[in-house]
Amino acid sequence: MFRVKVLSTYRVFQDFNLAAIYVSDAQYNRNIYFDTSPQAVRLYMRYNHWIPKVLLYFFILVDLSLALFEDPAIFPLPIWATMLVELLCLLVFTLRLGHYAQVIPRDKFWKDPKNICIIVILLLTLVDMIIYGALKATNCYGVRWSRVLRPLLLVNVTEGRQLRRAFRSIRNALPQIFYVFLLFMFSLLIFSLMALKLLGKRGLKTIDGSPYFTNYLQILFDLYVLVTTANSPDVMMPAYNNSYVFAIFFILYILINTYIFMSVFLAVVYNNYKKYLKEEVRQLVRAKRHKMVQAFGVLQEQREGGGEPVVTHHNWNQLIRLVQPDIRNAHRELLWSVADDNNQGKVAFVQMADLLNIEVITLKSRPHPLHGLCPALYLSAPSRLLCRLVQHRAFVIVYDLIILVNAVFIGLDEENPLIANSEWAFLALYLLEILLKLYVFEPRAFFSRHSFWNWFDTIIVVSALLATIVNSAVMSTGNYTSRQILDIVFILRVLRLIRVVDSIKRFRTIINTLIRIGPAILTFGQLIIVVYYIFAMVGMELFKGKVKFYAEDSSDPEKAFCGNPLLNGSDFAQLNYCKNNFNNVVSSFVLLLELTVVNQCSGFATVTHASARLFFIVFHIMVVIVIINIFVAFVLEAFFVEYSVEKSDLQTSLERKIEELELAVAQ
Amino acid sequence: MFRVKVLSTYRVFQDFNLAAIYVSDAQYNRNIYFDTSPQAVRLYMRYNHWIPKVLLYFFILVDLSLALFEDPAIFPLPIWATMLVELLCLLVFTLRLGHYAQVIPRDKFWKDPKNICIIVILLLTLVDMIIYGALKATNCYGVRWSRVLRPLLLVNVTEGRQLRRAFRSIRNALPQIFYVFLLFMFSLLIFSLMALKLLGKRGLKTIDGSPYFTNYLQILFDLYVLVTTANSPDVMMPAYNNSYVFAIFFILYILINTYIFMSVFLAVVYNNYKKYLKEEVRQLVRAKRHKMVQAFGVLQEQREGGGEPVVTHHNWNQLIRLVQPDIRNAHRELLWSVADDNNQGKVAFVQMADLLNIEVITLKSRPHPLHGLCPALYLSAPSRLLCRLVQHRAFVIVYDLIILVNAVFIGLDEENPLIANSEWAFLALYLLEILLKLYVFEPRAFFSRHSFWNWFDTIIVVSALLATIVNSAVMSTGNYTSRQILDIVFILRVLRLIRVVDSIKRFRTIINTLIRIGPAILTFGQLIIVVYYIFAMVGMELFKGKVKFYAEDSSDPEKAFCGNPLLNGSDFAQLNYCKNNFNNVVSSFVLLLELTVVNQCSGFATVTHASARLFFIVFHIMVVIVIINIFVAFVLEAFFVEYSVEKSDLQTSLERKIEELELAVAQ
Repeated sequence: MFRVKVLSTYRVFQDFNLAAIYVSDAQYNRNIYFDTSPQAVRLYMRYNHWIPKVLLYFFILVDLSLALFEDPAIFPLPIWATMLVELLCLLVFTLRLGHYAQVIPRDKFWKDPKNICIIVILLLTLVDMIIYGALKATNCYGVRWSRVLRPLLLVNVTEGRQLRRAFRSIRNALPQIFYVFLLFMFSLLIFSLMALKLLGKRGLKTIDGSPYFTNYLQILFDLYVLVTTANSPDVMMPAYNNSYVFAIFFILYILINTYIFMSVFLAVVYNNYKKYLKEEVRQLVRAKRHKMVQAFGVLQEQREGGGEPVVTHHNWNQLIRLVQPDIRNAHRELLWSVADDNNQGKVAFVQMADLLNIEVITLKSRPHPLHGLCPALYLSAPSRLLCRLVQHRAFVIVYDLIILVNAVFIGLDEENPLIANSEWAFLALYLLEILLKLYVFEPRAFFSRHSFWNWFDTIIVVSALLATIVNSAVMSTGNYTSRQILDIVFILRVLRLIRVVDSIKRFRTIINTLIRIGPAILTFGQLIIVVYYIFAMVGMELFKGKVKFYAEDSSDPEKAFCGNPLLNGSDFAQLNYCKNNFNNVVSSFVLLLELTVVNQCSGFATVTHASARLFFIVFHIMVVIVIINIFVAFVLEAFFVEYSVEKSDLQTSLERKIEELELAVAQ
Repeated sequence: MFRVKVLSTYRVFQDFNLAAIYVSDAQYNRNIYFDTSPQAVRLYMRYNHWIPKVLLYFFILVDLSLALFEDPAIFPLPIWATMLVELLCLLVFTLRLGHYAQVIPRDKFWKDPKNICIIVILLLTLVDMIIYGALKATNCYGVRWSRVLRPLLLVNVTEGRQLRRAFRSIRNALPQIFYVFLLFMFSLLIFSLMALKLLGKRGLKTIDGSPYFTNYLQILFDLYVLVTTANSPDVMMPAYNNSYVFAIFFILYILINTYIFMSVFLAVVYNNYKKYLKEEVRQLVRAKRHKMVQAFGVLQEQREGGGEPVVTHHNWNQLIRLVQPDIRNAHRELLWSVADDNNQGKVAFVQMADLLNIEVITLKSRPHPLHGLCPALYLSAPSRLLCRLVQHRAFVIVYDLIILVNAVFIGLDEENPLIANSEWAFLALYLLEILLKLYVFEPRAFFSRHSFWNWFDTIIVVSALLATIVNSAVMSTGNYTSRQILDIVFILRVLRLIRVVDSIKRFRTIINTLIRIGPAILTFGQLIIVVYYIFAMVGMELFKGKVKFYAEDSSDPEKAFCGNPLLNGSDFAQLNYCKNNFNNVVSSFVLLLELTVVNQCSGFATVTHASARLFFIVFHIMVVIVIINIFVAFVLEAFFVEYSVEKSDLQTSLERKIEELELAVAQ
């Protein structure tokens, strides 16, 4: 009998664990079909712990940043050192994958393409390392081609859900983009042929004296670049100088290809994005509901007197304590009362994952700690007057004016001692503001998770204070001024001014939307890094050392043509673009960013071969036509949602409940 | 009794006129509250006649193109000549307005802002002409400032409905755009201040040796231009060459201002566009229904035996004959049977305006004329085989292959006699194709209004044939080759290749959407012309003669700096941009187009004053941020509609009716 009791307790404990996992999977939209055996459940909980996740991302970061130390390196390290670090990374990834393999059923594991991907990447990397090591040992030329695979790990690890979704939406849009692209290419071919026939035989010369529009491939490339607007109006000047009539050709070209086709690309990408976004959201909601139903199934009990099965209040409490150990009792009871209000057993339970995701700040009615410590002082007439003053609209306006005056002072010359000292006054004023607000408002409410501007203010002002003190200290120890610290001081001073936008109501919708899409922009950041990394690796193999940068004070005669005689007298060298090169991973990234904005690559075609342009065209298609358009579509969608959507039903029902409860307190 | 009879007939005739006007107003979405007195109705019919409309647009065109002949002119004319023409134009506009004033009630006339606008424009123009004439007569300096008002006529004439709608949608979007713009400017100011503080004191130099980022206004302007991507990466090179770290500043700047803010502008413009488009469409539909109800009210008769009033079949026929005199009986009967089918008196009648707008091609079942002329031959076995061959899929494929071979031949050198003569063969093949198709398909169906590609083919092939014959004739009369005719021949040859896209099914949706938005793009064309014209007029007054263009064979030493010593050694002169000037209206338009694509204006700030940049910034804000975004929004919306919308109910009910009727014929 006793033994059974223990077993039952053990089972119940396991049940709670299982239910809690289902709930938190639903809450964070995890979609892993783990094994439900007690051992697998425990392993799965460990798998979802934050420490291994952080470690994994740390090692991915280490693996990616190996590019800084490998040839062509910024900080060269011997091959054995980078290889050793990479082996360590591979080991970590293998361990993590092994852990994952033990959590989910064997057949699921081998059916999942992301696991296969990781295994293939790991194996290929190992093979490449062995080949490269052997080649280097025999002093042969070797290429670390597996480096392009590294960023794919970021996509294929279990946590890269958002990134995979972004890639999926791109893959889904590809067929439609492809047809528009074919049509666009056709238009390009036709226009190029026309340009060849119209302008090729006229004996026109470009600005550097070479024949104008006589080579079909050259025309094709020039007109493609015109779509990116990089060579406008240079490409049309020789024809236009010859006759006004040729302007019509270029006007039509720009209208059709730059404006209409680029808009069509955006339309196709946006349309697909919306379509698949809806589908993905539907699937997510379905998966979430399925998980919650499973959790309910584990914990459900038959009600006395029949009827639908329910989860008791006691079990609910225990479950929520497992899912969110740091939740406050009041908050938990609030959630229960909202769920219980609907009073429908399973239906109410299924909402729990969403309810948990709604942030509730229950500090509103909590008195200020000073009120508790010293009520006589805090409730005295002057103290109350101060509170009213700080909460008054005029307080905000006064500080906005102070910020504006400060902006003028920043703009003035800081060599003037009056202005340099005024900085202390401004810092004191800002500090005073924060202290006053802390006096008036409850500190925990002031620093709640969603008070973006309070956090922003405090961090900026405190760091500006620290940096200014350090700067003064450094300056007073001699006439030496540290440029770095001064830079930080300046940046912080200017950032302080941003605060002013928060007090203008009209800007808030826009700013809030921008803050809200912040996290999603990080996903795009990862997407861009994956694509940039691959192109940087390829670019470095193709173009490393072709263009050299000489420091400004260098007197090397090769400086005039970036160390490559082929660039002698070229625009690339004359415009001082030598630092735009593929000689290391950092300058590769900066160059790729520049190419994203404006696709200028003539220099690299000069130093290697005309076909090098293919690299730049492919980059443009991938990044500008596909990824940037998805980014624009994403921002558009975020703003449309912001302009149209009301709060969800769940959120309002929670708010109504809070109001009711407060009303009950007041009565 | 007799007299009464005549009166009644006369009244009925008037009633039909009135009803027909209501219907055609509803059909073409005219929205004029005309007087319903018989005289006003007759005047109104005259007002809507196509001849005065064409005349009006002709004189607007004449008025606008006066800029070609006025100082600064392409073809200079004496002042009295242009003034005389302008007076004539003003007279025409006044007459047209007078006509309009007689058509609509007096109080409506004076309440309509567009009439007031036209009167003010006419008066101001007259005043300006008198002042200018007087000044010129006394040899004083005068400015024809009223020229900027000319394009506004295009907006304010009664026929400029679409254009007014476009301007209205811009005006409605302005407040929201303004707030985003303020935020954008704030971000620009903050970034500029940061750039000044971070980079101003470092003693960096730009490529031409001037100090880098030391003047706040200069930084502000440079960073604004960076948003247009015109000076990327030049503006960041000095800082980047100094240190990798500064790249972060520019990356953040580009991310926030070029990508995010520009997307937000698009989002705001698009959102407003959609919102007001919906509202406008709703109003249009309401006005249309109101007109049709009025027409019904004029013609309705009480049915025998009571019930709802109806319009009899006889009256319906007479009305439609008035509204569309060229409609065929079959088509009219079809419309009646569709309307009668619903059998609801007024409700069915109200649909008529929409029914009339649906194009019906009733030629499907009509036999080929050759079949009527010589049935024995046309129905013989070889003739039938030919028909089957031409209608076969292989026929299309063969001709696509011919087009591809032709493309290769065009690309090859046409000096080669074999290739020059091959042109005749290709022309013959294309002609043969058209003749074969005309043999197989009914000619009127082949050339129906919506067979875009048949028209396209025939026009291109026939004109290519004519041009090639003329060209050969000119060549055979001597060794002289006319470049113009050859150009036309080449253009036609290349255009022929476009046909190939029609046979690829995947492209059709895209192409059809593009063809469908063609007319609306014309509205945007007018919008752009209005804005460009105003900017061109202002720009010509500000910058005329500052930059001169010298023909390529000129040996004038001033050619090296565009005739302005201030430009000596500047980029503007070195890149041979001298023809990008405001010296006449054509080059102004081309320059404004270049500025739309890439905003480069450093040259004009050099030759006048730094504040000249304001002109270019205002242009960029107006054209790129507002109008181009509306254009993109419009293309996006057109594609979304194309991807999502099915045919309207009315259209399908008409199609169903046609099928039923054909079925009845077959039985």
